[in-house]
Amino acid sequence: MIFSSALIENAVNEFARMPGIGKKTALRLVLHLLKQEPSQVQQFSEVIARMRQQIRFCQQCHNVSDEDICSICASHSRKKELVCVVENIRDVMAIENTQQYNGLYHVLGGIISPIDGIGPDQLNIHSLVERVQQQGITEVIMALSPTIEGDTTIYYLSKKLKELPVKITTIARGIAFGGELEYADEMTLARSITNRLPLESYMQK
Amino acid sequence: MIFSSALIENAVNEFARMPGIGKKTALRLVLHLLKQEPSQVQQFSEVIARMRQQIRFCQQCHNVSDEDICSICASHSRKKELVCVVENIRDVMAIENTQQYNGLYHVLGGIISPIDGIGPDQLNIHSLVERVQQQGITEVIMALSPTIEGDTTIYYLSKKLKELPVKITTIARGIAFGGELEYADEMTLARSITNRLPLESYMQK
Repeated sequence: MIFSSALIENAVNEFARMPGIGKKTALRLVLHLLKQEPSQVQQFSEVIARMRQQIRFCQQCHNVSDEDICSICASHSRKKELVCVVENIRDVMAIENTQQYNGLYHVLGGIISPIDGIGPDQLNIHSLVERVQQQGITEVIMALSPTIEGDTTIYYLSKKLKELPVKITTIARGIAFGGELEYADEMTLARSITNRLPLESYMQK
Repeated sequence: MIFSSALIENAVNEFARMPGIGKKTALRLVLHLLKQEPSQVQQFSEVIARMRQQIRFCQQCHNVSDEDICSICASHSRKKELVCVVENIRDVMAIENTQQYNGLYHVLGGIISPIDGIGPDQLNIHSLVERVQQQGITEVIMALSPTIEGDTTIYYLSKKLKELPVKITTIARGIAFGGELEYADEMTLARSITNRLPLESYMQK
């Protein structure tokens, strides 16, 4: 791509470094910004820079936060004895968007994956064990992806927590709502029959 | 979408204002930036702000430029007597990318479109007439989209320029390379037969 302006070329290159944004999309975004008032673009730029500079991570659950303790951990209306273990902050948002969960979270910051060189020491596992020991947590829900890495992480965590007086659960696996039975993989289908539910709990959806 | 951080929410909203970027994509971009070093995000932010503040428009052809006169107009190796009229700077880039055109440009900044309230006075038409009068331009190539608005603009410009000693041409309309004949619209197909080319010029592609 040939640019007649180094300013534009640099801006396109910066955008094109982001995931899922190629050069053509980057150019479209840059040309859009060119049409905006300088003050608006200034604001865009400042909001992004400020976000990265000022963001903090909750000292308790490691979720992103504007304060030392995030708004979820600080809330008085949430069940403090219930902790949901997730891989990253996107999963926190996904669960929050359901508006069905009323406990706290613990963000691992990844999952155990030897192939990517991620071991237990790089994850927020020590602080989870501490929380369970010190904060009267009665149930830990493992909300990790049903992959080999996710299952490995669940297995590792359950071993770490097994001496402690805490109930460990995992989110339900099964056929998704709207999913076609014939396209489900065998393992999911088999498990969904083994772990079948009484009709009442299905109707409560 | 529920955010546990106002910093992130603001950043997502800023990204989501851009064309083709919804809330989910915006969140993905913001989470990507969160993973970067603060210095990298600072650089991203500064490059964007600087681009908008410092960008200029060429005083001659109205293309984006880092100087008062753009690099295309300032180049000594380009044919100064040939001017290609385009709608916007994206069209300049598209033609430059072909690496086949060696003349100058004139960016109208839009096309005549009564339905969008854009008349000739809002476009860079006066400066085109001046250039043709003063700069010894011998040919003006109309490279506008083959729409009603594009054709209206071509018609208007050709009337404005008809007293001047300049040849007016338009880019060729016809079947695109790789295009299937049976799917071409009737007008394009009809014109492509009327304006058929000698075989030699076809083989030169």
